[in-house]
Amino acid sequence: MTTTTPALIADSATSGFHQGTIERRDLRPDDIRIAIAYAGICHSDIHTVREEWGPAHFPLTVGHEIAGTVVEVGDEVTRHAVGDRVGVGCLVDSCGQCEPCKDGMEQFCTKPSVGTYNAQGYDGEWTMGGYSQEVVVSERFVLRIPDGMELDVAAPLLCAGITTYSPLHRWGAGTGKQVAIVGVGGLGHMGVKIAAAMGATVTTISRSDAKAEDAKSLGSSAHIASSDEEAMKAAKGTFDIVLNTVSADIPIADYVALLKPAGVVVNVGLPPAPYEIPPGSLIGGNKAVAGSQIGGIAETQEMLDFCAEHGIAATIEVVDAADVDAVWDRVVDGDVRYRAVIDTSTLTGG
Amino acid sequence: MTTTTPALIADSATSGFHQGTIERRDLRPDDIRIAIAYAGICHSDIHTVREEWGPAHFPLTVGHEIAGTVVEVGDEVTRHAVGDRVGVGCLVDSCGQCEPCKDGMEQFCTKPSVGTYNAQGYDGEWTMGGYSQEVVVSERFVLRIPDGMELDVAAPLLCAGITTYSPLHRWGAGTGKQVAIVGVGGLGHMGVKIAAAMGATVTTISRSDAKAEDAKSLGSSAHIASSDEEAMKAAKGTFDIVLNTVSADIPIADYVALLKPAGVVVNVGLPPAPYEIPPGSLIGGNKAVAGSQIGGIAETQEMLDFCAEHGIAATIEVVDAADVDAVWDRVVDGDVRYRAVIDTSTLTGG
Repeated sequence: MTTTTPALIADSATSGFHQGTIERRDLRPDDIRIAIAYAGICHSDIHTVREEWGPAHFPLTVGHEIAGTVVEVGDEVTRHAVGDRVGVGCLVDSCGQCEPCKDGMEQFCTKPSVGTYNAQGYDGEWTMGGYSQEVVVSERFVLRIPDGMELDVAAPLLCAGITTYSPLHRWGAGTGKQVAIVGVGGLGHMGVKIAAAMGATVTTISRSDAKAEDAKSLGSSAHIASSDEEAMKAAKGTFDIVLNTVSADIPIADYVALLKPAGVVVNVGLPPAPYEIPPGSLIGGNKAVAGSQIGGIAETQEMLDFCAEHGIAATIEVVDAADVDAVWDRVVDGDVRYRAVIDTSTLTGG
Repeated sequence: MTTTTPALIADSATSGFHQGTIERRDLRPDDIRIAIAYAGICHSDIHTVREEWGPAHFPLTVGHEIAGTVVEVGDEVTRHAVGDRVGVGCLVDSCGQCEPCKDGMEQFCTKPSVGTYNAQGYDGEWTMGGYSQEVVVSERFVLRIPDGMELDVAAPLLCAGITTYSPLHRWGAGTGKQVAIVGVGGLGHMGVKIAAAMGATVTTISRSDAKAEDAKSLGSSAHIASSDEEAMKAAKGTFDIVLNTVSADIPIADYVALLKPAGVVVNVGLPPAPYEIPPGSLIGGNKAVAGSQIGGIAETQEMLDFCAEHGIAATIEVVDAADVDAVWDRVVDGDVRYRAVIDTSTLTGG
C-alpha cells in the first residue's frame, strides 16, 4: 500500500525534471509522514542525477535538505507528534547495531546506511528525496527544528549545516582559533557562520575577491583570493583549521602550508584526483589532512540546536519547482547566494 | 673558551667515522655539562651523515639519544644538580617566545629550534651530537631520567620513545582502542611497547612474518605481513590508529583502508615520494592522514615518566664505538633488535 505525492522527477541524467507524482509507503509503526514545506538544493543532488558520481536509479527524485511538519505518525512513534516542525537530512535508515551506529556515526553504518534518495532501502525499495510534498521516514532519522527557526532557512542545515558543523566541532573550532573556510558557496557560507558562532576568527578563501565583502557580512574577518600568490604566502602557518568545501581539485599542499603546527585541513568536497601531499609537509608541523562526511543523527540535532541558540541559519533564495532546472545551472556556476530552497507548494503533481 | 671531549667524527658523507676529539663550549649561566654514558643510534643519524636529507656540515658528530650524568652546572641552573641522571634528545635550543614554543612544541619554534647536531646554534656555532663523552646543553633541554630506569635503555627514549609516544598520546591510543604499528624497528618496537602500556590492543605490520613472534614479546596481540594481500584485506576497517614508522614509500591508501571511521594514519617516517590519497578514502569515514615529529620538551619528560611508571624502555644492543660503521650498515638492513646504543666509555679520543 502506498500514497502518492507531487514531486520533481528526473527520467535520466540528461532529461531535466518534469512534474509528476511519486509513491510513499504506508506508515510502519516507527514511521513519520512529513508534509514537506521546503527542500534545499545541494550540489550532491546535481552530481547524483547527472551521474557524475556513478550510475543513478531512474526515475529519480532527489533532495536531502528537507523541512516540514509532521502530519501522521506510526503506532510506536514517541519522538515526534503531529504538528511538530521537523527535518530530514541525508540519511533515512541504518542498522543501529554496528560500531559506527553505536558511536553516533550512522553515515558509516557497515550494513550500510540508506541515503535519502537513489539508495536501496532494507526493504529493497529505492528511496526518493525531498523535491516532493511528502516523505515517510523512520522517527530515528527525523530531526526537531527548534522553535523560532523558520523552515525555509532550516532546510539547508540538514546537509550544508551538519557537513560543516561536524568537522568544525570535531577539530576544535572555538575561541582563540583561526579558521579558514575555502569556498564561499552553499557549504562554505554555513562554515563561516558556524565557525564564527563557535567563537573562532574566520578567514574566507576563494578564487577571487568577488565574495569578499559578502563573506564579511556572514561573519568572516578577512578574505584571501587564492589566485593572489603573495596573499597565500603571507598566510602561511596561520590557521588551526582549514575547512575545504570545494569539490574541484585544489593544490592541497598549498593549504597544508597555511596551517600552524598541529593544524588540520579538513575536506568535505569530493574532487576527482587524489591528493598529493609531501610527507614532510605533515611531519614538519604535526599536521593532518582529513575528510568529513555529513554527520550522525544526534550530532545533526546538536547542530540545529546550536544554530538556533546562536541565531544562525542558511542564507537562502526561495525558488519555484518549475525553475529548478535553471537554478541547477546557477548552482553549478556558483551564482546562488548561498542556497536555493524549493518552495514545495509550487509542485503541481503533473 | 672550550673544553675537548672524545667523539666519533665523520669527515664526509662517505668517510665513515674516526675517533678524535671535539670541542664543547664553557658553561653559560643556564648550561649543564653532562658526562654521556650512552648514545643511541637513530636512523636519522645515518640519513644526516650520508646527506640523504641534504648537505651536512662536516666534520660532524651525530647522536640525539643521549643519557648520562650531570657533572657541572652554570650559575643560574635550578632544574638539575651535579650527579643527576639526565638525557638530551633531538633539540638543544629554541626561542621560547613564539606560539609553538609557548604551546610546548619547541620542535616547531619559528626562529627555528636548534637540533642537537648538524644545526647552527643561535651563537652561530654548529652543534655536535652525542657520539661523544660530554655535551653542554641549556637546562631547558635537559630531561630527568626517572629512578630505576637504566641509562642504556633510557637513551633511545629521547628520540624513538618520544617520536612514538607523542602521536599515540595525541591521537588517543588507550583502553579499547585498536592500534597498528607499521614497521618493527627502532621506532616501531617503542610504538608497540608504549601503545600496549597505554592500554590499546596492538597489531604489528611489517613486510614479512619474520618479526611476528618477537613483536608479540614486545606487547603486540597480532601480526600482519603486508605482503599477504588476504590478511591486509581482512584487516580493513579495524584500526583506530595506524602509526607508520617506516621511512620508505608505502602505499598509504592501503593503510587508510585499514582504519575504522574517524581513524587516523600517523606517519613519523619521511619517505621520498608524496602520499597519494584518494579524497573519498578520507571523506568516506571521517579519516585523517597526519604527520608527527618528535615532541616538545615537557611532553618528552611526560613520556620518560610514563615509561618508568609502566616499566618499559628500549630493547637494546650495546655496541663499542669502534664498531659503529658496521652497526650502521646493520641498522640500514633492519638487522638490529631494536636499538643499538653506543657505550661511550669505548671512545678513545684519537
